[in-house]
Amino acid sequence: MNEQGGSALLTDHYELTMLQAALHSGAADRPSVFEMFARRLPEGRRYGVVAGTGRFLDLLERFRFRTEELDFLSDNGVVDDTTLRWLSEYRFSGNVWGYGEGEAYFPGSPILVVEGTFAEGVILETLALSVYNHDSAIASAASRMVVAAGGRPLIEMGSRRTHEAAAVASARAAYLAGFATSSNLEAGRSYGVPTGGTAAHAFTLLHDSERHAFSAQLESLGKRTTLLVDTYDVERAVRTAVELAGSELGAVRIDSGDLGATAGRVRAQLDALGAGETRIVVTGDLDEHSIQALAVAPVDGYGVGTSLVTGSGAPTVSLVYKLVARARGTEPGLPLEPVAKRSVGKPSRGGRKWALRRLDDKGLAVAEEVFPYEPQEAVGTRPVLRPLVEAGEVVGAESVHDARDRHRAVVAELPEQALRMSRGDAALPTVFH
Amino acid sequence: MNEQGGSALLTDHYELTMLQAALHSGAADRPSVFEMFARRLPEGRRYGVVAGTGRFLDLLERFRFRTEELDFLSDNGVVDDTTLRWLSEYRFSGNVWGYGEGEAYFPGSPILVVEGTFAEGVILETLALSVYNHDSAIASAASRMVVAAGGRPLIEMGSRRTHEAAAVASARAAYLAGFATSSNLEAGRSYGVPTGGTAAHAFTLLHDSERHAFSAQLESLGKRTTLLVDTYDVERAVRTAVELAGSELGAVRIDSGDLGATAGRVRAQLDALGAGETRIVVTGDLDEHSIQALAVAPVDGYGVGTSLVTGSGAPTVSLVYKLVARARGTEPGLPLEPVAKRSVGKPSRGGRKWALRRLDDKGLAVAEEVFPYEPQEAVGTRPVLRPLVEAGEVVGAESVHDARDRHRAVVAELPEQALRMSRGDAALPTVFH
Repeated sequence: MNEQGGSALLTDHYELTMLQAALHSGAADRPSVFEMFARRLPEGRRYGVVAGTGRFLDLLERFRFRTEELDFLSDNGVVDDTTLRWLSEYRFSGNVWGYGEGEAYFPGSPILVVEGTFAEGVILETLALSVYNHDSAIASAASRMVVAAGGRPLIEMGSRRTHEAAAVASARAAYLAGFATSSNLEAGRSYGVPTGGTAAHAFTLLHDSERHAFSAQLESLGKRTTLLVDTYDVERAVRTAVELAGSELGAVRIDSGDLGATAGRVRAQLDALGAGETRIVVTGDLDEHSIQALAVAPVDGYGVGTSLVTGSGAPTVSLVYKLVARARGTEPGLPLEPVAKRSVGKPSRGGRKWALRRLDDKGLAVAEEVFPYEPQEAVGTRPVLRPLVEAGEVVGAESVHDARDRHRAVVAELPEQALRMSRGDAALPTVFH
Repeated sequence: MNEQGGSALLTDHYELTMLQAALHSGAADRPSVFEMFARRLPEGRRYGVVAGTGRFLDLLERFRFRTEELDFLSDNGVVDDTTLRWLSEYRFSGNVWGYGEGEAYFPGSPILVVEGTFAEGVILETLALSVYNHDSAIASAASRMVVAAGGRPLIEMGSRRTHEAAAVASARAAYLAGFATSSNLEAGRSYGVPTGGTAAHAFTLLHDSERHAFSAQLESLGKRTTLLVDTYDVERAVRTAVELAGSELGAVRIDSGDLGATAGRVRAQLDALGAGETRIVVTGDLDEHSIQALAVAPVDGYGVGTSLVTGSGAPTVSLVYKLVARARGTEPGLPLEPVAKRSVGKPSRGGRKWALRRLDDKGLAVAEEVFPYEPQEAVGTRPVLRPLVEAGEVVGAESVHDARDRHRAVVAELPEQALRMSRGDAALPTVFH
């Protein structure tokens, strides 16, 4: 994004050259449908989590070609004058449906459906994919970590391991997937994600002794703060911490070594020192697997950084945005005809699609059902698509807190095997009607 | 970044609570040195590439706590009033040295050295790490792809697979590492990265036939355009393409199937049709290994997306930013004492550092030499650190084109084993004096 908040050049060059050629051929105004979907989940994953919806809708409203964007395109000969004029007047005027943010998705789920002319839909491709591919990768990894943590709070602290703006989006995605807090202050300001943090090793090293550092932190931040106890010697640090703060000490943080074994020793030491209420937070290269392995350790919270912001092995989720239907002309009333390429190894299903999640009589999800027509809602099904934009107006804006609520409900509805950490297939079959 | 271009909240909460506690203890103003380095290269990599310098210097100049940032911090009780006042007046007033952008680095290379008070250095940690960890990951992967391509041009087209702002930084990082062009228009506007692109499958599907689509594209974009030939049947598409454009056709693009075998067939077909000058561009899940495997195929250019923007298996490079020295008080003239934590498994070397690259008599790099004092420049060595900021003023700004020139020279200086695609150890030993 540039400094003035425009988003229109966050776009691949070829979207605009296609637009130019389609304006030339007259096909630019053909009514069209684009669909975003994933051909597969990241390897071994049992479900994916849709995220990015709220950010996409914000960016869509700022997708305008103003003088500075048009000047760049003109000066560099990216497109011709006819196209520049068209872009200068661009406002998306079509309709968008999408899976609710925080919803689960499966291979072939029509996560986003964009209906408009070819021209107005095609130039949104790059932006839509950037936002959804990133945010869904982070939320999908985060959701598994939340499951693995089994109710213990998770702290997102990966900002330093990803692009500074991706860090803000990552904090947002982790929060909607169930993380308790984030270290990222801009995520607090932009999205109301709760933020937290206390001190790093540098703070201890700055002072003449660990005791000086702990005293300073306790005096300034209060006894409910979290003291980092592994700069020198954990046992000595815990003793000093309780000596200075007493039983009111909020928490200690362990960032190195064998976290489970160390947490066990620190718990025993804290209890022996009368600090039975002092919590233990562990950090340091955690992922969903190491979190799960720590289930038996006396740990009260996990800080997760690198593995969260890199999608725990899947930093992108390979969502694609495809033209699936278009009219054969621009006259009103022409039918939308399904289209699909036949490239080797990249199957696409043409045609506009609708989707429902099918539930069993206990309310557990059993299938993702995809239809080439608008299905009747029936007992035992739940709609997954909701209107996001109607005739160019955003109608589906929600807060990240709404998305977080939805995600919690959606995970509760998934079958037990969806929540295993082991590698597996998609937990629900996608049934194409 | 927020809409007004501020960068100060792209920061971890704990940087500011540490600041508060250090202001309280009086240690905030202790002269300090922070160092950014990597304990190791990503697994199997033989060298890393420093990138992000130019972006970091830009963001440093905009790192200001204005009313909107201060209001957020105040409203949410992140820090106390003393700290808010300090932040409102914050300007970095220290010195920064760094490896030139595009330079190679090795484990322990002091990539960035920040000298100032503890307070002014510590609050830059998150931003510096975000920028360098991301951009260096992309540039490090890109550099290997450029080596693998052996002089054939590479097109960066991964915007859709990463966060929309990370996409712009990725295009910049790929360009400085030697990619020829990018699809990302904002990278063109912001950094002067050459952009390119022509059409996707959607353009062919939009029209009533492939012939209609190709005609429209050729008429609008000219015969030197690149036609995408794998929407339906490659052989038929190539025949149609040459029929319509003749021997002047610029290029064809193949995006699916066995790229090497298909390129071989298409080359033969193009030559037989008299289009011997028409180039062949291949795209579709390429990485450095598949690029190298295509060396024997008649391919004239590669488009790379996902693997580039995800760092080809290493989406972050685990750079850390550590307090390595500080004075024991704030009185002038006190010595800077080395500091380092003793956490299990995370060794740090305390003390301010300087570095040189040692070259043999043929000009090939043989070692990375790191000193705890400023070494004499001598025959057979090359300085790698350069001044970036002096007394708060940016003095080391360069364009991405300068960084690209440096990178080309640096790679030419690396020993042959550094340029192998197989997994290996760091190509140069890091010698600590």
